[in-house]
Amino acid sequence: MTEKIGFIGLGLLGLPMAANLQEAGYSLVVYNRTAAKAEPLVAKGAELAPTIIEAVQPGGITISILWNDTALEEVVTEEFLEKLGPGGIHVSMATVLPETARKMAQLHADHGCVFVEATVFGRPEAAAARQLNIPYAGPKAAKEKIKPLLEAMGGQGVFDFGETYGAANIVKLVGNYLIFAASQSMREALTLSARYGVDPHPVVNMLTTTLFAAPIYQSYGQRIAEGNFTSAASPIPLKDIALFKTTAGEVEMPTPIADLLEDLMKQEAANSR
Amino acid sequence: MTEKIGFIGLGLLGLPMAANLQEAGYSLVVYNRTAAKAEPLVAKGAELAPTIIEAVQPGGITISILWNDTALEEVVTEEFLEKLGPGGIHVSMATVLPETARKMAQLHADHGCVFVEATVFGRPEAAAARQLNIPYAGPKAAKEKIKPLLEAMGGQGVFDFGETYGAANIVKLVGNYLIFAASQSMREALTLSARYGVDPHPVVNMLTTTLFAAPIYQSYGQRIAEGNFTSAASPIPLKDIALFKTTAGEVEMPTPIADLLEDLMKQEAANSR
Repeated sequence: MTEKIGFIGLGLLGLPMAANLQEAGYSLVVYNRTAAKAEPLVAKGAELAPTIIEAVQPGGITISILWNDTALEEVVTEEFLEKLGPGGIHVSMATVLPETARKMAQLHADHGCVFVEATVFGRPEAAAARQLNIPYAGPKAAKEKIKPLLEAMGGQGVFDFGETYGAANIVKLVGNYLIFAASQSMREALTLSARYGVDPHPVVNMLTTTLFAAPIYQSYGQRIAEGNFTSAASPIPLKDIALFKTTAGEVEMPTPIADLLEDLMKQEAANSR
Repeated sequence: MTEKIGFIGLGLLGLPMAANLQEAGYSLVVYNRTAAKAEPLVAKGAELAPTIIEAVQPGGITISILWNDTALEEVVTEEFLEKLGPGGIHVSMATVLPETARKMAQLHADHGCVFVEATVFGRPEAAAARQLNIPYAGPKAAKEKIKPLLEAMGGQGVFDFGETYGAANIVKLVGNYLIFAASQSMREALTLSARYGVDPHPVVNMLTTTLFAAPIYQSYGQRIAEGNFTSAASPIPLKDIALFKTTAGEVEMPTPIADLLEDLMKQEAANSR
């Protein structure tokens, strides 16, 4: 493993994922807008790239985990693509519009390099605990090459969504939307229970050990029963529900539930200010 | 087990549950509005009561599983309560308003008998397979007495919700509401996936083996991916979402999500006519 891996974006998820990769023995060249965040990695031997371009590995593998579509489009310049060059693979782990993933794939192909989309389910704690779930899509040969890296980054489950670009982002947007629907509906339901004088804890306990025995219901259910849940703690819910709606708009599909969830989350964000 | 058990209501759930009870060795006196439905039970030794009152066991246990609040209120007459009498226990397994359960409890207490509310999670197939989940509430002594019957009827899980009447119906209404929210939101999400050209099957497979690894998501997810899901196949969703909303109305709580779910299910019912 003397091959160097470029790693761009050391945010809440990026940093623990890069650390996992380093711990698995990979040599990293890291870039982050705020360079100080790279310190723990540099202390263990990572190279700090002073610019994005210097993190790009010609003909090798460069991973990025960026905030949104705009950030991804700003990183992937002509210069980036030319440096990545023939045989180069760019693994993009941001949650973006499926349409952006498709455009990116075309841009990379135009420069003889390969785009792989791989999205990440899991909170920063799950990244540290190597309990992420990662759907990915792209050309077979490139996927085979990067699969061990996805696992090394903390993917306890990596899920191959074939060669159709957009699929890994669709599954991410669908999953996040279902999380929002589950958490908001659980809160409405448990609020009714509490207001009616029935302690929500045993209600959550019964439902999340039977019909709804799923990690999402268990974790959110406990937080809601304790009164410790808000969708306004992070900007991600509003960002991702908007991507879901934009994608639905592209195929002219009505989304009454997503519309309501967005309204509820916007109200919550406004109330928390 | 020579004590006879009264059993009123042999509908889609009542019949297999009564059959389970009979198979466990209990002697039944059964009543159903359409007496012919009792035939398989009578063939195995159950006594057919020609009227509701004749199914009531004085000082013993009488079980009812009726369609709704009105049916329950029509069954529980002065005559019913007087015949049930001191020491008599009435286990009501219908899904009704928590408020109705509270009124019923008071009515029974006024006549020296005991009301126990026990609601049922599970489809008729689950009843036959003894895979029901049954939350129940009422006085401790009565609950201890009827717990073996709930298990014999097919309750793989019986969940004690204490002595506060209404709790077993709250958990049922909350659970059904969450089922409606999960199924409707899954359909919106998987429709987006399909419309965007991403096969919903692997999406369902990934999500229901990870974040949403729960029976509800697995069974509805498969049906939705196959295009085989409708909320209009049964009158139960519209009935129970209305009970949820009425209960919320009693405590002056807004229910934006329940309101939308009801609208969507009403539209679906109208479209399926």
